[in-house]
Amino acid sequence: MIINDPKIVAEVKAQFDRYERALMTDDLDEMDQLFHDAPTTVRYGVGEVLYGMDEIREFRKGRGGSPQRRLGRVFISTFGDVATANAEFFREGTDRRGRQSQTWIRFEDGWKIVSAHVSMEGTTS
Amino acid sequence: MIINDPKIVAEVKAQFDRYERALMTDDLDEMDQLFHDAPTTVRYGVGEVLYGMDEIREFRKGRGGSPQRRLGRVFISTFGDVATANAEFFREGTDRRGRQSQTWIRFEDGWKIVSAHVSMEGTTS
Repeated sequence: MIINDPKIVAEVKAQFDRYERALMTDDLDEMDQLFHDAPTTVRYGVGEVLYGMDEIREFRKGRGGSPQRRLGRVFISTFGDVATANAEFFREGTDRRGRQSQTWIRFEDGWKIVSAHVSMEGTTS
Repeated sequence: MIINDPKIVAEVKAQFDRYERALMTDDLDEMDQLFHDAPTTVRYGVGEVLYGMDEIREFRKGRGGSPQRRLGRVFISTFGDVATANAEFFREGTDRRGRQSQTWIRFEDGWKIVSAHVSMEGTTS
């Protein structure tokens, strides 16, 4: 297993960027394509826990888009056909740091997120 | 790639439980053994962001142990030699829901966490 193969890191970064654009423009189809369409997929959002793609889709439909944000540090690690993408972000109107973690796996139809966790940093550990 | 092979799910659950015991007893050596010892490993805690095992170890040494907690729903998905373990938890003295996400990879020396994210659920999405 090759760790951090530059070619693979670049591939995953391109998919990561694609997801960020889709999130900022509330492009539900594009977000859908980048998540693994299965009951095994999990998304923990800032204020919700969602198990399986059905719950994730329902939440997105009702959300009306994510708050706008800018990215801070983006840290991608790849392990063969698996990657973790961790990113800091800052939402408009607050200095509080947000954090987003994604686990990506390369399937036959491309890289997909199988697990995601988004949160705002707390004041205690 | 076999998804949710029951034998693999049980293996990962055993390692997940081992980590939870180590966290609750502040067993630093045991926690160390269950994280991938590399600069690629990331841990986002409730109140901190840590990049690489050196930062993760330093934080743990200075922490004096995690708050005690009980687990809620535990949701493990496996994809060949890769697994995501997502769990809800409740710390003593609060009803607020905590969430923990771990990405596990099987290396030659066993299953290791390559990325972890812990947060308390917020009041907005």
